[in-house]
Amino acid sequence: MKNEIVKPSILPGFMELLPADQIQFNKLADTIRKTYESYGFMPIDTPVIEKSEILLAKGGGETEKQIYRFSKGSTDLSLRFDLTVPLARYVAQNYSSLTFPFRRYQIGKVYRGERNQKGRFREFYQCDIDIVGNNNLNILNDAEIPSIIYSVFNNLGFQDFTIKINNRKLLNGFFEALEIQDVAGVLRVIDKIDKIGVLNATQELLSCGLSNEITKKIFEFINISGSNQEILLLLKNLDISNTNFKVGVDEISTVTKYVKEFGVPDDNFKIDLKITRGLDYYTGTVYETFLNEYPSIGSVCSGGRYDNLAEYYTKQKLPGVGISIGLTRLFYQLDEAGFFKNYNDKSITKVLVIPLGNNIDYGISIANFLRDKKVITEIYLEDAKLVKKLGYADKLAIPFVILIGDKEAEDKTVTIKNMVSGEQTTVDFNGAYEIVVT
Amino acid sequence: MKNEIVKPSILPGFMELLPADQIQFNKLADTIRKTYESYGFMPIDTPVIEKSEILLAKGGGETEKQIYRFSKGSTDLSLRFDLTVPLARYVAQNYSSLTFPFRRYQIGKVYRGERNQKGRFREFYQCDIDIVGNNNLNILNDAEIPSIIYSVFNNLGFQDFTIKINNRKLLNGFFEALEIQDVAGVLRVIDKIDKIGVLNATQELLSCGLSNEITKKIFEFINISGSNQEILLLLKNLDISNTNFKVGVDEISTVTKYVKEFGVPDDNFKIDLKITRGLDYYTGTVYETFLNEYPSIGSVCSGGRYDNLAEYYTKQKLPGVGISIGLTRLFYQLDEAGFFKNYNDKSITKVLVIPLGNNIDYGISIANFLRDKKVITEIYLEDAKLVKKLGYADKLAIPFVILIGDKEAEDKTVTIKNMVSGEQTTVDFNGAYEIVVT
Repeated sequence: MKNEIVKPSILPGFMELLPADQIQFNKLADTIRKTYESYGFMPIDTPVIEKSEILLAKGGGETEKQIYRFSKGSTDLSLRFDLTVPLARYVAQNYSSLTFPFRRYQIGKVYRGERNQKGRFREFYQCDIDIVGNNNLNILNDAEIPSIIYSVFNNLGFQDFTIKINNRKLLNGFFEALEIQDVAGVLRVIDKIDKIGVLNATQELLSCGLSNEITKKIFEFINISGSNQEILLLLKNLDISNTNFKVGVDEISTVTKYVKEFGVPDDNFKIDLKITRGLDYYTGTVYETFLNEYPSIGSVCSGGRYDNLAEYYTKQKLPGVGISIGLTRLFYQLDEAGFFKNYNDKSITKVLVIPLGNNIDYGISIANFLRDKKVITEIYLEDAKLVKKLGYADKLAIPFVILIGDKEAEDKTVTIKNMVSGEQTTVDFNGAYEIVVT
Repeated sequence: MKNEIVKPSILPGFMELLPADQIQFNKLADTIRKTYESYGFMPIDTPVIEKSEILLAKGGGETEKQIYRFSKGSTDLSLRFDLTVPLARYVAQNYSSLTFPFRRYQIGKVYRGERNQKGRFREFYQCDIDIVGNNNLNILNDAEIPSIIYSVFNNLGFQDFTIKINNRKLLNGFFEALEIQDVAGVLRVIDKIDKIGVLNATQELLSCGLSNEITKKIFEFINISGSNQEILLLLKNLDISNTNFKVGVDEISTVTKYVKEFGVPDDNFKIDLKITRGLDYYTGTVYETFLNEYPSIGSVCSGGRYDNLAEYYTKQKLPGVGISIGLTRLFYQLDEAGFFKNYNDKSITKVLVIPLGNNIDYGISIANFLRDKKVITEIYLEDAKLVKKLGYADKLAIPFVILIGDKEAEDKTVTIKNMVSGEQTTVDFNGAYEIVVT
């Protein structure tokens, strides 16, 4: 048969991994999932394709430009660009079937037709949790979230990371007290200070119509530093009578107190008044998380409190708090930084059984024996020279090889080789099992 | 804020589950994944969107009509409609980085714009494994596949199921011996005998240009029955000298012998000469799997051997053997048949901690204690009456509730309630842990 060969390739901006890397990626995803589940979050799995009128109900902004939108028949379809809009639709649609507070996690791919650049992906995994209340949701939920972030990154093997929090009521109240009109504009500038630098930020604030004096006050405020307790004390002592500000201070104080109760060490949790989360739907607590050994990655887990999740789909008031981890980008950046280099377990498979000569049957029996005992075991079934068979185990980083020759078959033994140390010994089935699991 | 409310809904033909059902769905998916991994299959995760020229390289037929195809900028894109074409592209693209035989699994969503009807989905999960050889692949791999199917359905909780196999060389050889021209047409008719009935099938065969006599011979052949050994004996004794036929008989004999070695009980494995797998790329062994208690579901796991996986993307010859489980449809059909009714564990969460009065801190400490010991624990943080808090646990089917009142906080105890039996007892932290895990 003669076919035209189409050169095999994937689209730019899409991540696709070789199996050894995919194994590492899946470990991260599994750890995140298990941690989310350990706090009582339930899985949902919304469609990747939704009606455009649903996904674009809010409309406006970058979203619409980046969305993958198309028609099938007479239907206007889009690929989801995040997991929050589908959650809002889901909760509104299933309102009467759900139990509130509704705690859900979703780990899935989302799509954004971004400009193609290194480290930016058009298809990427988000790992989200949200707690959605019916009419109201206790502020204590805002304090539990950092403990979940802490567990996730701890379980992923990190120690040196900082969960930074702030509160939008606090910021808004402060700006209101300064009689600033364009609060959203100011928030946007603060959000990118670390990127653009103080000088450019000052320039931008001045061009928002702010005076020198106000700009100076803003910088003084957002740079308030010290221990969490010191910052809280300073905030309380600021002579600001704005109600939003006072509520914000109360909220961040409560959250800070309970974050400690929930078991987050002081070293991993920091009030930072520069954190704003540009997205306009946050209304209270906001979070960002930084891996201190990898500062260039930026925030690896962000989120916050919102007043009303699903206002475009229902008249029910559904306040919530949630976070998202952009796993594809996180994996990419960690990999670039060499994080996975020290990972030894690049194989899921523990044992490769290699039958020599005519001993397939006997090889199958040891493979069945080990698999029954939950040892992940593969059997090499091809005709090949021993060196090629061993090379296969080596390339796939399978830690143990079991060799079956005539002698072993006759004696009901196996020869087991540790592929890392090179050690080799002949034992019975149980002996092989013991070596593999210890 | 006043928004236009968009009625929340999803597209027809898309499955979306409530959390309790999603938990069951994920258990099936996890079991399939773990079983695939236990045989040494490695994960890959190809993009949902690919270049249309890649996905449609083979072209023709139903595929092109059903595909979700669209443009973004000047790029012609499509959503994958199966996991086999992306595998072919993946193996061709990464040929020099992969180790052969390449054993991969992929569990992911695929898209087909099918006519909307009950039980048919436009977005659905496929769970695939394939073993791809470089130039050649031992027939023993064809014998291992049924043992993996057996383990999957056994691990999913089924006993009464039948893995049926046949061999396309055997069929093709038989038809060649009868000097039938339109082999593909005949295969298509046989493939649907169970659907259309023998009478209609006869009619269709006659209208393929076959004589009465030939048609009769075909029916005699495909209806050969008995034990696997009896069928093999009958096949060997048929006086057919066609080479394809002879190779087919050899292959199915070898596969049958080794399937037994691989541990599949006789009851679960049956040669059935009516199995053809309409798809034209199979060239040897073919499989279908039936749950005998749910005959209306049809085959729940199908696949087979192919000579050349990636002929549209590379000149390398890559023979392989694989299977696919259509998980979304399987879940839907099992659910319709009441399969999940008897499932008790509708909750991932094991314990709900309910602090009463002012005992949040103490409540958090028991939650932290249990979670450290790997017990999935949630804490109820809202202000509500006790009956509402208990109702929350009840609705979510959480099996244990821990109540924390002033007395418990003072005595450093907890009151633990079994939500199924109603039993309630007051114990210390360790006592609660013991109750939960036993």
